[in-house]
Amino acid sequence: MPKPIAFPALSQFVAATAGRNMTKAAYAAIAIGVLTMALLTVNPAYEAAHHWVDAVLWACLAFFVFEWLVRIRHALRAGVMPGYLLSLRGLVDAVCALAIPLALALGADPRTAWLLAVLWMVKVIPGIPGLRQLRRVIVVESGPLLSVLVIFLMVLFLASVAVYFLERDVQPATFGNVPAALWWAVVTLTTTGYGDVVPITPLGRIVAALVMISGLGVFGLWTGILATGFAAETRRDNFLKTWESVSKVPFFASLGPSAIADVTHMLRTMDLPARTMIIRKGQQGDCMYFIASGEVEVDLPGKKVQLGDGAFFGEMALLGNNLRSANITTTRVSRLLVLDLVDFRLLMARHPDLAETIDAEAKRRALENK
Amino acid sequence: MPKPIAFPALSQFVAATAGRNMTKAAYAAIAIGVLTMALLTVNPAYEAAHHWVDAVLWACLAFFVFEWLVRIRHALRAGVMPGYLLSLRGLVDAVCALAIPLALALGADPRTAWLLAVLWMVKVIPGIPGLRQLRRVIVVESGPLLSVLVIFLMVLFLASVAVYFLERDVQPATFGNVPAALWWAVVTLTTTGYGDVVPITPLGRIVAALVMISGLGVFGLWTGILATGFAAETRRDNFLKTWESVSKVPFFASLGPSAIADVTHMLRTMDLPARTMIIRKGQQGDCMYFIASGEVEVDLPGKKVQLGDGAFFGEMALLGNNLRSANITTTRVSRLLVLDLVDFRLLMARHPDLAETIDAEAKRRALENK
Amino acid sequence: MPKPIAFPALSQFVAATAGRNMTKAAYAAIAIGVLTMALLTVNPAYEAAHHWVDAVLWACLAFFVFEWLVRIRHALRAGVMPGYLLSLRGLVDAVCALAIPLALALGADPRTAWLLAVLWMVKVIPGIPGLRQLRRVIVVESGPLLSVLVIFLMVLFLASVAVYFLERDVQPATFGNVPAALWWAVVTLTTTGYGDVVPITPLGRIVAALVMISGLGVFGLWTGILATGFAAETRRDNFLKTWESVSKVPFFASLGPSAIADVTHMLRTMDLPARTMIIRKGQQGDCMYFIASGEVEVDLPGKKVQLGDGAFFGEMALLGNNLRSANITTTRVSRLLVLDLVDFRLLMARHPDLAETIDAEAKRRALENK
Amino acid sequence: MPKPIAFPALSQFVAATAGRNMTKAAYAAIAIGVLTMALLTVNPAYEAAHHWVDAVLWACLAFFVFEWLVRIRHALRAGVMPGYLLSLRGLVDAVCALAIPLALALGADPRTAWLLAVLWMVKVIPGIPGLRQLRRVIVVESGPLLSVLVIFLMVLFLASVAVYFLERDVQPATFGNVPAALWWAVVTLTTTGYGDVVPITPLGRIVAALVMISGLGVFGLWTGILATGFAAETRRDNFLKTWESVSKVPFFASLGPSAIADVTHMLRTMDLPARTMIIRKGQQGDCMYFIASGEVEVDLPGKKVQLGDGAFFGEMALLGNNLRSANITTTRVSRLLVLDLVDFRLLMARHPDLAETIDAEAKRRALENK
Repeated sequence: MPKPIAFPALSQFVAATAGRNMTKAAYAAIAIGVLTMALLTVNPAYEAAHHWVDAVLWACLAFFVFEWLVRIRHALRAGVMPGYLLSLRGLVDAVCALAIPLALALGADPRTAWLLAVLWMVKVIPGIPGLRQLRRVIVVESGPLLSVLVIFLMVLFLASVAVYFLERDVQPATFGNVPAALWWAVVTLTTTGYGDVVPITPLGRIVAALVMISGLGVFGLWTGILATGFAAETRRDNFLKTWESVSKVPFFASLGPSAIADVTHMLRTMDLPARTMIIRKGQQGDCMYFIASGEVEVDLPGKKVQLGDGAFFGEMALLGNNLRSANITTTRVSRLLVLDLVDFRLLMARHPDLAETIDAEAKRRALENK
Repeated sequence: MPKPIAFPALSQFVAATAGRNMTKAAYAAIAIGVLTMALLTVNPAYEAAHHWVDAVLWACLAFFVFEWLVRIRHALRAGVMPGYLLSLRGLVDAVCALAIPLALALGADPRTAWLLAVLWMVKVIPGIPGLRQLRRVIVVESGPLLSVLVIFLMVLFLASVAVYFLERDVQPATFGNVPAALWWAVVTLTTTGYGDVVPITPLGRIVAALVMISGLGVFGLWTGILATGFAAETRRDNFLKTWESVSKVPFFASLGPSAIADVTHMLRTMDLPARTMIIRKGQQGDCMYFIASGEVEVDLPGKKVQLGDGAFFGEMALLGNNLRSANITTTRVSRLLVLDLVDFRLLMARHPDLAETIDAEAKRRALENK
Repeated sequence: MPKPIAFPALSQFVAATAGRNMTKAAYAAIAIGVLTMALLTVNPAYEAAHHWVDAVLWACLAFFVFEWLVRIRHALRAGVMPGYLLSLRGLVDAVCALAIPLALALGADPRTAWLLAVLWMVKVIPGIPGLRQLRRVIVVESGPLLSVLVIFLMVLFLASVAVYFLERDVQPATFGNVPAALWWAVVTLTTTGYGDVVPITPLGRIVAALVMISGLGVFGLWTGILATGFAAETRRDNFLKTWESVSKVPFFASLGPSAIADVTHMLRTMDLPARTMIIRKGQQGDCMYFIASGEVEVDLPGKKVQLGDGAFFGEMALLGNNLRSANITTTRVSRLLVLDLVDFRLLMARHPDLAETIDAEAKRRALENK
Repeated sequence: MPKPIAFPALSQFVAATAGRNMTKAAYAAIAIGVLTMALLTVNPAYEAAHHWVDAVLWACLAFFVFEWLVRIRHALRAGVMPGYLLSLRGLVDAVCALAIPLALALGADPRTAWLLAVLWMVKVIPGIPGLRQLRRVIVVESGPLLSVLVIFLMVLFLASVAVYFLERDVQPATFGNVPAALWWAVVTLTTTGYGDVVPITPLGRIVAALVMISGLGVFGLWTGILATGFAAETRRDNFLKTWESVSKVPFFASLGPSAIADVTHMLRTMDLPARTMIIRKGQQGDCMYFIASGEVEVDLPGKKVQLGDGAFFGEMALLGNNLRSANITTTRVSRLLVLDLVDFRLLMARHPDLAETIDAEAKRRALENK
C-alpha cells in the first residue's frame, strides 16, 4: 500500500470519513460553502470577486463528492452497499453531492443552482450533541404537543374567518380572502406581529386581542410540556451514561445494587481527551473525581504521580481545605465520574464506610506530600 | 336486513358514526370542507371553478347532515333521545348540520353563509389525544392563572390610560381615546408589536418599555404555572393508565401493594393496533415489554413464536447485548407495558428475585434459539 | 336602631364593607366605572350620551366615597383610627375617593380628571386569589430575577450605544441619539418589534440579531426561574392549607405524625359554599372526599342521608365501579379534602388498615342501599 | 501615617476599593456616567448644558482612573502585580480607565470617544448576586443549549434561502440577496417581527408561517432546558450555603449525619447586616429562625433579651399562636437559618425529640414573659 505512506494525511482523512464521523474538514467545508453561497447572491460582491466565489464553491462541492465516493467505496468493501445508499445518511450524502450538478445539468441558472448548497447543512444534524435527547423528549411528549398544535390550528382558522368577516369590507386589499386572513392570524398568534396586516374595526381588534392572549397561552403550554419532558430526559440520560462506569470503580464495589442505583443518580460522566487540565492549583474546588477509565497525572512539587483506573482525586477540596493543591491533567483519553460537593456530603452521610475510606486515603496523601 | 348486505361499507360507517367516534371520513370531510371554504373567498379561484367549489361544499354539508341523522336515529333506538340533543356533542352536531342551511334560508349571501363551515372544526375537539390532560392542568392551576390574568388586565388598563394621557395631544389620530390606547396596550403587552400605533413622546416610551418588560414577566409566570401543573398531570395520567394493567401481569404478582405502586410509576402503557412492528432486528434497544393484553409474534429464524398475555420480551437488549435479535410484531390489538432501561436497572436492584426470573427466562430463550 | 330594620340591605352592605372585604357591588362599580371612563374619551360616544356618562361616573365616585366613609366610621368605633388611614388599604381607599374631586377642585379639565378613575382598579389587588403565592415566588427568587434584570439592562445599554454608533450617520432621524437607540433596544430585546426604528447597515443588523437572540435567552432564564419557584410554592401552599384539616379527620387519626405529613401532600383542600353539587349521579369519578368541616347530603333513591364532620364519601368510584351512584350536595359552607385516584391507590398500598376501613364502609353502604 | 487621620473617608474608600469590592461610590459613578453619556448625544440637551455634561463625565473618568491606580498600588504592595494586571478584573479596570483617554489621544471626535463610557457597565458584572448560579446552569446545560442553537441556525439558513428563492423576483429591493433574507429570518424566528421585510407570495408566506412556529418551538426548548437546569442548581446552591451552618447549631447536634443532610434541604440561609428587624410584633409568622452566628435582641415589654449563636426564636408562631409577640432585631452582622412552617411540621413529625426540645423552650419562654 504505497499510497497511505505517500499521503498519510489523505489516508487518515479517508479512514475518518469512511468511519462515518463528521471530520473537522467537513464542518469547515459546510461553513465556508454556505457562507460563500450567501455571498454569491450579493450582486456587487459577486461581480467584484466572482472567480474566487466560483472556485470556493466548486472546491466545496468537490469535497462532498469525494466524501461520498470514499463512503461508497468503504460500503462496497464492507459489503453493506445497498444498505448504505438507501439509509438516511447515504441519501443525505447523495443529495449533497448530486443536487447541484444535477440542477446545472438540467439547465438551471448557475446562481440559482448553487442555492442548493444550503442542503449541505443537513449533514451537521447527526453530529449535534444533545439531539438524541431532544428527539426523545419530542417523541415521549408527542401526545400533548400534538394537542397543542391542534388547538393552535383551530384558533388560527376560527380567528381568521372571524376577522375576514369583520374586516373584508373596510380593508379589501389586505383582508380580501380567508388565506390572507390566515396569514394575519399566524403572524398574530405567534406574537410575531409584522404589522403589514392589522385589523382596524373595533370588533376585529377585540378578536385580535383574544388571538394574542391565546398566543401567549399556546406558547406557555408548549414550553411547559417541553420543560417537563426535558427534566425527565436529562435524569434518564445521565443515569444511562453513568451506570456502566460506576460498577467498574472498586470504591463503590462494597455497595449493594440498590445503593449503586442511588450513587448513579449522583454522579456525572465526563469524557476528556488526552492532555486536558482537570484541576488547576489554587482554584476553588467543589467536586471530586473517580477515574472510570484512562489515566491522570498529579503535578506535585518535585514529582509527578500517575493515577489509573478506579482511583479518585480532588477529595481534599471537599474535606475542609477548599483550594486545589496541585495541577491534575489527563495523560490519555479518560472517562471520569464527577461527584459534586452536595452529593458528596449526602453520600458520606448515608454510607459512613465510604467516608472512612476517603478520609484514610486523604490523610495518607497529605502525609506523603509533606 | 337487506341493506347492510347490499352496502356493507355504508352499514359499517353508520355503525361507527352512531358509536359517536370520529370516523376517518369525518376528519377528511372537515379538512376538505374548511379548505374549500377558504378557496371560496379567493375571487379568481372561485370564478374559475365555482361549480367544483360549490359541489364539494354541498357534499361536505350533506355528509354532516347525514352523520347527524344517523346519530339521532341511533339515539332514538337507544332511548336516550332528549339527552343526545341537549348534550354538548348533540348541540355541536346540530349546529354543524343546520347553521349553513339556516343562514341561507334567512337570506344571507351564500359566500358569507358558507363561512360558517369553519364551525365544523369544533367537531375535532373531543378527539384531541391529550385534551383531557390539558383541561385538568388548567382547572387545577386556575387560581394562579386567574391571578396572572387579573394582573395582565390591570397593567393593560393602567398603561393605556397613562399613554393616552401622554400621547393624545401629539398623536390624536392614533391615541385619540382610551379604547385606542387599550388596543396599543394589548399589542405591546403580548409583545406582538404590530407597529401601527407607537408612542413617540419620551414619557410615553418609558411607559411602553415598562409594559414590554411586564409582558415578559406575565408570560414567564404563565409558563411557569403551566409547566408546574403539566409535570404533575403527566405523572398522574401515566399512573392511572398503567395501574390496572400491572396487577394483571403475573410477573409482578409476587410484589406487595407498595412495590406495585412503585413499579407503576416506572412503566408506560402503549396501545398498539394489530400487525404493528414493535422491535426491528438489528436496532439498538433500550427498553423491555410486558404484554398486558393481546399477542405478539417473534420472527425467529426458521420458526415463529407467539407470546400472549403476561409474557415479556425485549429483555435481552437490557442484559448486555443491546442489539435486538428478532423482529417482533403484534398479531392483534395489544396493550403493552414498556420498562425503560433506567427503570429496569432500578427495579432489578431493588427486587433481586425479579432479576433472577428475567435472567432465567433470557437464558432459556438463548439456549432454545441456538 | 331603627335604620337597620328600615334598610336591611344597606345595613348588610355597610357591615360587609366595614369588614374590609370587597363586596360584589364594589367589583361592579369598578368595572362599570372604568369602562365608562374609557367611553368618556371617545368623542362621538360622549357627545351623544354625555349626561348618562357623567351620571354613571358620579355614581361610582359616590359609591367609593361612601365606602371610604363607612370604613372610617368603622375604624373610629373599633379604635384603630390612625392605623387605618395610614395602612396601605386606607391610603388606597383615600386615593380612590379623593383623587378625582381634588383634581376637579384644582381646576383640571373634567375629561382629564376622570381619567384617574383607572386608579379604582387598584382596589382589586388584595382580592386576587393566588396573589400571596405569586408574591412569595417573586420574593424567594428575587436574587436570580435581579441578576437577569441586570443582564437585561447591560445588554440594553451596550447594544443601544453600538447601534447608535453604527446607524447615526445613515438614519439621523431615528438613531440620532442614545435615548432613541435605547428605545429601539427595548423594543427589540423584548421581541416586541414595532418596526418604527430598524437598523439598516449590515453591522447594525448583526448587532440587532444578537440582541434578539439575547432576548430569547433572557426570556428563557426568566421563565425558568419563575417555573422553578412556582413549583416549590404550589407544594408549600397546598401543604399549609391541608395540614390543619387532616388531623381533624378521625379516619387519619390512627396514622403516626410522619405518615400524616405524607398524607397531607396527597390531599387537596376545597372550600365550598352551601347548596353546591359535588358529585353528579352517572358521571365518571376519579377522587374521594373527606369532610373536614360542614355537611353534605346524599340523594339516595327514596331517602336523603346527611354526612357530617369527619365522614368520607365517593369511595365507591375508586373501588371498581367508577360511575357515581348518587347526587351529593353541600348543605352548608363546607371544607372538603379531596383524595385523587392515584394518591388513593398509593395510600391504600402503604396503609392496608386504612384500605380495610374504607372497604368495610363501602360494603356496609352497598348493603344498606340495596 | 498622617493622611489616614486627615482624610478618614478617603482612607476608608481606598481600603474598600483595594479590597476589590464594588463600592457604593463606584455604582453611583457608573450610573451617573452612563446616563450623562446618553445625554451627551442629545443635541439640544448638550448644547444647553455642555459644561456640566463634560464636567460630570471627566469626574467619572477621574474616579475610575483613581480606582485603578489604588488597585495597582495595592497589588504592588501585596506582591501580586503582574497577576492583577493580567487578570480579567485588572483588564476590565484598565480598559475602563484608559479607553476614553486613548480614543481622545488618537484624535477621535470627543462625542464619539465618550461613547466608550458604556464599557464602565462591565464593572458591575462580578457584583451580580445570582450570577455564579446562572453561569453554572449554562455550563451544565451547555450540551442541549448548543443543540438548540445549531437547530436555530439551521432553520435560519434553510428558511432564508427558501424565501430568497421565492421572493427575489417580486421584492428585489428587500429580498435581493441571501444576507437580506437572513435578516428577515432572524427577525421572524425570534418572533420579533419588525415588518420592514415581509414575504408577499403565497409560498413565501407558508415558509414564513413554518419559521414562526419553529420560533415558538425553539423558544420552548430553550426555556425548558433552562428551567430544568435552574431547578437543580437552586437546590444545590441552597444546600451548600446551609450545610456548614447546620452542624454548628447545637439544636441539630443530636441528629445523625443522614438526618442532617435532610435538615439541610429544609433550611434556608439568610445573611443580615446589623440593626435589621427580623420579626415585627403583631405580624403573621410562618417560619422560625436559628442563629448560626451573630446575635439578636428580643424587645420584650420592660426588658431586652439577647440571643446568641445556636439559639432559636420565632417558634411560638408555629405552635398555635401565629401572631408574632415581640420585635426582634439583629445587633450585629448575623447569619440565620430559616425553617419554614411546612418543613417545621415535617421535621417535628420525623424527629419527635426535636419537637419536645422546642415545646419545652417555648413553654419556658411563655412562663418567663408572664
